[in-house]
Amino acid sequence: MKIINSTPISDGYYLPSENIEHSESIMIWPERADNWRNGAKPAQKVFSEIANKISEYEPITMIASKEQYDHARHVLSENVRVVEMSYNDSWIKDIGPMYLLNKSNNIRSVDWRFNAWGGLVDGLYFPWDQDDKVARKISDFQRIDYYSVSDFILEGCAIHTDGEGTAILTEDTVLSEGRNGHVTKDEAEEILKNYLNLDKIIWLKSGYFMDETNGDVDNMLSFVKPGVILLTWTDDVTDPQYQISKDAFEILSHSTDAKGRKLEIHKLPIPKPLFATENESNGVDSDNGLLPRYPGDRLTASYVSYYLFNGGLLLPIFDDPNDQIAIDILKDLFPDRKIETIHARELLLGGGNVHCVIEAVPMYKE
Amino acid sequence: MKIINSTPISDGYYLPSENIEHSESIMIWPERADNWRNGAKPAQKVFSEIANKISEYEPITMIASKEQYDHARHVLSENVRVVEMSYNDSWIKDIGPMYLLNKSNNIRSVDWRFNAWGGLVDGLYFPWDQDDKVARKISDFQRIDYYSVSDFILEGCAIHTDGEGTAILTEDTVLSEGRNGHVTKDEAEEILKNYLNLDKIIWLKSGYFMDETNGDVDNMLSFVKPGVILLTWTDDVTDPQYQISKDAFEILSHSTDAKGRKLEIHKLPIPKPLFATENESNGVDSDNGLLPRYPGDRLTASYVSYYLFNGGLLLPIFDDPNDQIAIDILKDLFPDRKIETIHARELLLGGGNVHCVIEAVPMYKE
Repeated sequence: MKIINSTPISDGYYLPSENIEHSESIMIWPERADNWRNGAKPAQKVFSEIANKISEYEPITMIASKEQYDHARHVLSENVRVVEMSYNDSWIKDIGPMYLLNKSNNIRSVDWRFNAWGGLVDGLYFPWDQDDKVARKISDFQRIDYYSVSDFILEGCAIHTDGEGTAILTEDTVLSEGRNGHVTKDEAEEILKNYLNLDKIIWLKSGYFMDETNGDVDNMLSFVKPGVILLTWTDDVTDPQYQISKDAFEILSHSTDAKGRKLEIHKLPIPKPLFATENESNGVDSDNGLLPRYPGDRLTASYVSYYLFNGGLLLPIFDDPNDQIAIDILKDLFPDRKIETIHARELLLGGGNVHCVIEAVPMYKE
Repeated sequence: MKIINSTPISDGYYLPSENIEHSESIMIWPERADNWRNGAKPAQKVFSEIANKISEYEPITMIASKEQYDHARHVLSENVRVVEMSYNDSWIKDIGPMYLLNKSNNIRSVDWRFNAWGGLVDGLYFPWDQDDKVARKISDFQRIDYYSVSDFILEGCAIHTDGEGTAILTEDTVLSEGRNGHVTKDEAEEILKNYLNLDKIIWLKSGYFMDETNGDVDNMLSFVKPGVILLTWTDDVTDPQYQISKDAFEILSHSTDAKGRKLEIHKLPIPKPLFATENESNGVDSDNGLLPRYPGDRLTASYVSYYLFNGGLLLPIFDDPNDQIAIDILKDLFPDRKIETIHARELLLGGGNVHCVIEAVPMYKE
């Protein structure tokens, strides 16, 4: 049910940390051949691996279109629930409901507007109408009440929170002309604080180098726990990512969180730069509505785009020596979680990473 | 999850009576303009009235297509959950899962084949592929395990049971050439007994006069409780329905049920014959794939096509003097249920009645 005349902050609902127990996870089946190479079959294989793996730990729902329902049902493990729904592409974390909890663990959600990361200014495809309905449709089918924000664009991947009132976002995305050019930074902060119950917003300037979303924050960093940040890093001064990570480090190391804590920052190295091959690019359908894929495009490979599930952590890996270093760092920071890995190059080729293709529904009191 | 290598009878699952508590009800939003007049808007009004009414008594889900989702969501009460799914038309009782319970009240379902009441022989529309997937999709979405019968056509409206091992069906539907011409009556009985855990099948020859389904049993009779039947009736010997009801009475009064009881038969009069008007018929789109609607077509108006919901009974009425007689009879037979009424002419114009457009999910143990 849509909630009309109030805000989460006035009702005591807040955006929880990702480090909480889930009732289930949700994904969306990839299919558009103008984004996913070779008719999306290689991507479907990776999405299936993720869903089947997560289904061993918690319930999982795969949303599939009318056209792909039967194929998804056939390919996926029987433990994965398949639900028909329309969409434009598969980035559930960006377009799904943003779930909120209150102190009694009741759940609500926020339905932000979505415009394919920049709409007609610099968005990645047109139209995005079905994507923009996904949050409302999922909330309705879950019988979860939701707030609807009529005039503010926010993707789930554009924000990280500690669940204690602090959020980190990038100016290049949330304040971009194509998304929220109509509001000032102060107005944006007020909207975010009202709808996510935040006390302190830390703004980075940019996200990962060449991230086609303009740089959603989830390829840059994550919260290990309140006060502790894991930051995408490279020591290679010739990599354009070097300065971006260095700038983020500067901002973070001079920031305090909502509770007044200084932030402890751990550096998570990236793999050596990855680029799309000619063969990979040629597998993508040409389409005027979508950003084309070119051979040599830098892929936004980060390890920080992992996904926390009940009891574990799913880490993207890239056949790189740093895979093991990332595993070791995460094992150390999340000693109670089992580290599972997934070869994620196919997700990078589609413009994202693990954290964007799967969304958690918090455990809540019905 | 699809159950491959067993049958309900071997697993202790049976088809329950309709006279049980529900966990929810399900409907499908009408939209095809080649079946429902005036772009289905009058039918949508009646479906909305039914859904909104039932939502006062139990949870209800309205399935809506991608195209009609927003409109259905806008029109329906906030208490009605709307879920996107594809379908060919709106006859949920015919195409939805056939729910089974066991003695512990666990639930499973049966996914029969559906071919639009006769397939290429005498079915009512083509294609029916999306309808045939609805039972599997709903079961999957509900996380309910299901048996799938690969080679037998059965609509939910083609069978009534007392929940104690007795079922009543019509030969004109279940044994029709267009549905199950490939099996003998004995073979059909064996399949029905194995998948619905039945001991005794009573066959009527025909259903309601001119029923375009060939005569599904739910316009002819219902079980008030085990051993007690409510039979569609007319005393007008000039009405072709007279002989059909008389023949059914003969068969039923000479039958015993699975427990060896003789059947107590109550007669429920029909309204005076109703016919489609020229104006009504002209509102339906012409389409080669669908049985056309002609002015003067007899409408299959029965009161026995009511729907039991938690605490009540929803009765179709037709602005006929017999409306009150039907209400009185049902009040007498269901003294503990509140009788709600709905003007159902619009449903008749689309080829059905209340009992076909809403399906109950039994209350079950998760």
